Amino acid sequence: MEAMNSSMSTGRAPKQARSLQTHNRILDATEELIRERPFQEVSNLSIANAAGIAAGSLYSRFPKRELLLAALIDRLMERAESRLEYLQTTYASNEPGDIVANAHVTVREFIRFSRDNQHILSSFEGDESILIHRRRFERSLTNTIRDSFIEHLPAAMSDGLSTKVTWRAELAMRIVASAVHRAIGPPVEWAKDMGIDDDQLAAELTKMAVGYFVMGESMELKQLAPVPYE
Amino acid sequence: MEAMNSSMSTGRAPKQARSLQTHNRILDATEELIRERPFQEVSNLSIANAAGIAAGSLYSRFPKRELLLAALIDRLMERAESRLEYLQTTYASNEPGDIVANAHVTVREFIRFSRDNQHILSSFEGDESILIHRRRFERSLTNTIRDSFIEHLPAAMSDGLSTKVTWRAELAMRIVASAVHRAIGPPVEWAKDMGIDDDQLAAELTKMAVGYFVMGESMELKQLAPVPYE
Repeated sequence: MEAMNSSMSTGRAPKQARSLQTHNRILDATEELIRERPFQEVSNLSIANAAGIAAGSLYSRFPKRELLLAALIDRLMERAESRLEYLQTTYASNEPGDIVANAHVTVREFIRFSRDNQHILSSFEGDESILIHRRRFERSLTNTIRDSFIEHLPAAMSDGLSTKVTWRAELAMRIVASAVHRAIGPPVEWAKDMGIDDDQLAAELTKMAVGYFVMGESMELKQLAPVPYE
Repeated sequence: MEAMNSSMSTGRAPKQARSLQTHNRILDATEELIRERPFQEVSNLSIANAAGIAAGSLYSRFPKRELLLAALIDRLMERAESRLEYLQTTYASNEPGDIVANAHVTVREFIRFSRDNQHILSSFEGDESILIHRRRFERSLTNTIRDSFIEHLPAAMSDGLSTKVTWRAELAMRIVASAVHRAIGPPVEWAKDMGIDDDQLAAELTKMAVGYFVMGESMELKQLAPVPYE
């Protein structure tokens, strides 16, 4: 078994060109199949068939189903990162320090990304075995967006960037991500209920994130008295 | 079958005291059981047993499983409404027009409500048959919260209450509800990831909702150039 290498059976992307090609073919086939039905209903055999490989070969690379999903998540994360990087090189020089315009680009892009990858994202739902991957993915995506947001803060805000600013930016992005998830994804899809298209959603969520980010620091909340149950 | 009435087989709450008692016992038993496992894994027989009734009697009241879930949702909605009503009578006179304090009470309460009813709320997930009930529930809950929010707007804001104000309040509450869902509910639970407790979550989401509500109207967004895929 000289073709066997350490990447096999761990589900990680292999280094050798040919092996990597097969790896990607498996992921492509899986992505294609989960456009039609949830991952839980897609059999290993149908994945192997669609990828044009033997079932045993699929098994030797992904001995557990969760490794396959984890690999899909990794690839999704790479896609998101390279997209954001591209955006930054395109936009960063145009609007340095324009927090609203930069947040707007990021949020619009995040919505587009969520739409494009809806079939993968909803495959994660309800699968206990990949909870840990799912949380890792969400955290890492949110942090990537947060960093892209922070990178474009006006100098006055980013000088002496405190943990608090970073924390607030992360929270803003968590809220954006949650809102997008429920606004355009099943089962709720409230954007459809409210008759809002993706551009409007992007605009309003940008206002929300920037409004929170700018006002949040200074807004004073009174201590609330506890309300007992009647 | 003189006990038979029109509420039977529709899943709606019956009017006769004794029949209503049985109806509620079935819902109580179901709620108790879905604390332990998802609704999909709870059998009709175990519900009938826990409620102390015959399986046939359960069937005659709820011929379809989805009617049972729909009845649970109705009861949940009643609970939420009566709780918000109680809050309004307790708080409304204290802080008339204090939009921040009033939003804070509402958001904190919504988080508490979501925590207390987590077992029911997560039973809805992934069940295609009750999608329509689920969406009705979310819409109606959001609108109830929105109305409670609008009711406490300062006179300057609520005089000549426009569709736009109502729309913005609804959107703010949709965002709050989405954030709470993903912050405290599985699979994501990002509040736990970020080390935020329910009180902090309530405070930050209040700032977010009010910040958006107050600044959203006046914030100008530039038209974004389309970004092509590379």
